[in-house]
Amino acid sequence: MSSIATSSAPLQICGMDVQDYLVKAEEFHGHLSPGVAMGGFLVDAAWRVLGPTPYLNAVVETVVCLPDAVQILTPCTLGNNFLQLLDWGKFALTLYDRETLKGARAWVNRQAVAAVPEVAGWFLRGAGGIVLPKDEVVKEIARRGPDLLLARPVEMPAALKPSEKVATGPCPACGESYPLRQGAACLACQGQAYYRF
Amino acid sequence: MSSIATSSAPLQICGMDVQDYLVKAEEFHGHLSPGVAMGGFLVDAAWRVLGPTPYLNAVVETVVCLPDAVQILTPCTLGNNFLQLLDWGKFALTLYDRETLKGARAWVNRQAVAAVPEVAGWFLRGAGGIVLPKDEVVKEIARRGPDLLLARPVEMPAALKPSEKVATGPCPACGESYPLRQGAACLACQGQAYYRF
Repeated sequence: MSSIATSSAPLQICGMDVQDYLVKAEEFHGHLSPGVAMGGFLVDAAWRVLGPTPYLNAVVETVVCLPDAVQILTPCTLGNNFLQLLDWGKFALTLYDRETLKGARAWVNRQAVAAVPEVAGWFLRGAGGIVLPKDEVVKEIARRGPDLLLARPVEMPAALKPSEKVATGPCPACGESYPLRQGAACLACQGQAYYRF
Repeated sequence: MSSIATSSAPLQICGMDVQDYLVKAEEFHGHLSPGVAMGGFLVDAAWRVLGPTPYLNAVVETVVCLPDAVQILTPCTLGNNFLQLLDWGKFALTLYDRETLKGARAWVNRQAVAAVPEVAGWFLRGAGGIVLPKDEVVKEIARRGPDLLLARPVEMPAALKPSEKVATGPCPACGESYPLRQGAACLACQGQAYYRF
């Protein structure tokens, strides 16, 4: 059924049509953002380099947008301990096997982005680019994703999230459970409470 | 002001049958855990106290399990900036309106848990309880959830995640974008890299 001259195959993200990924991303993330679009391609690129991975873990190097791409596309979530966050402000991530510690890191290629004014206006904060509405930027990323990033194998010296059970007990001030190693009271009762009753 | 016990609440989680929630939780979290089951009831309890909230934000006080309950049940995700994480090791969360700063906090009631050996064996790390397989603990929590926790209104002095744009530029060592306020090179090139190429 294929025609003689076919255009290049539509881009995919983790085996999913890009448009299908964007629908899922909008549903989970609440809106479509350039970051979650680019994040999908970063996950895809790292996973392609890594290959089939039975014990997949992930590290994201920013807390913005990227964690949602990982949580949509992989079994790694924040709450299940397989996604590690670094608040580094870098648009990059690593997927790795927590048994073999072999991984792949993917990151945005600044030079490639700089050559695309429609994306540079977003990623480079306007420097040398055209500042477009976000949905226009998403469209450009969806067309070009893999050309805007780089990925290569890495090795991890150690898994970043060893699970450990810590001893807990009741806080003498509020009565709630807390990790005893934090001191004589829980962090809220030590003065860090972010709320007022 | 006394705490509001939620024991009269029907056994639903955010308008969903508890069993339906558990199916969704298993799909997202990868397996059913007592923490994600309890987390569902915590979200539900806080939201009942808070009422309809147009600009919902969430704070979780542990990175284990609870973030997934919030991400399954609310529009707040880590990547969209509406879910704030505190690595405090406390099984508690707050939902609040980022415009009015009115919120509700829910937490596990240690005394109530201590009276239920099947749950105490998990939550109190075995102290005075019966250590059961996790799926048995989940069943007990699903039967009793609202009786095991407390929730009450809180006020927030400030929203915890103001969005700010920070200036970025290329790292002179690796060439990747990073927040310039972090210093003369990105954190990885300052020696914090968790990977080896």
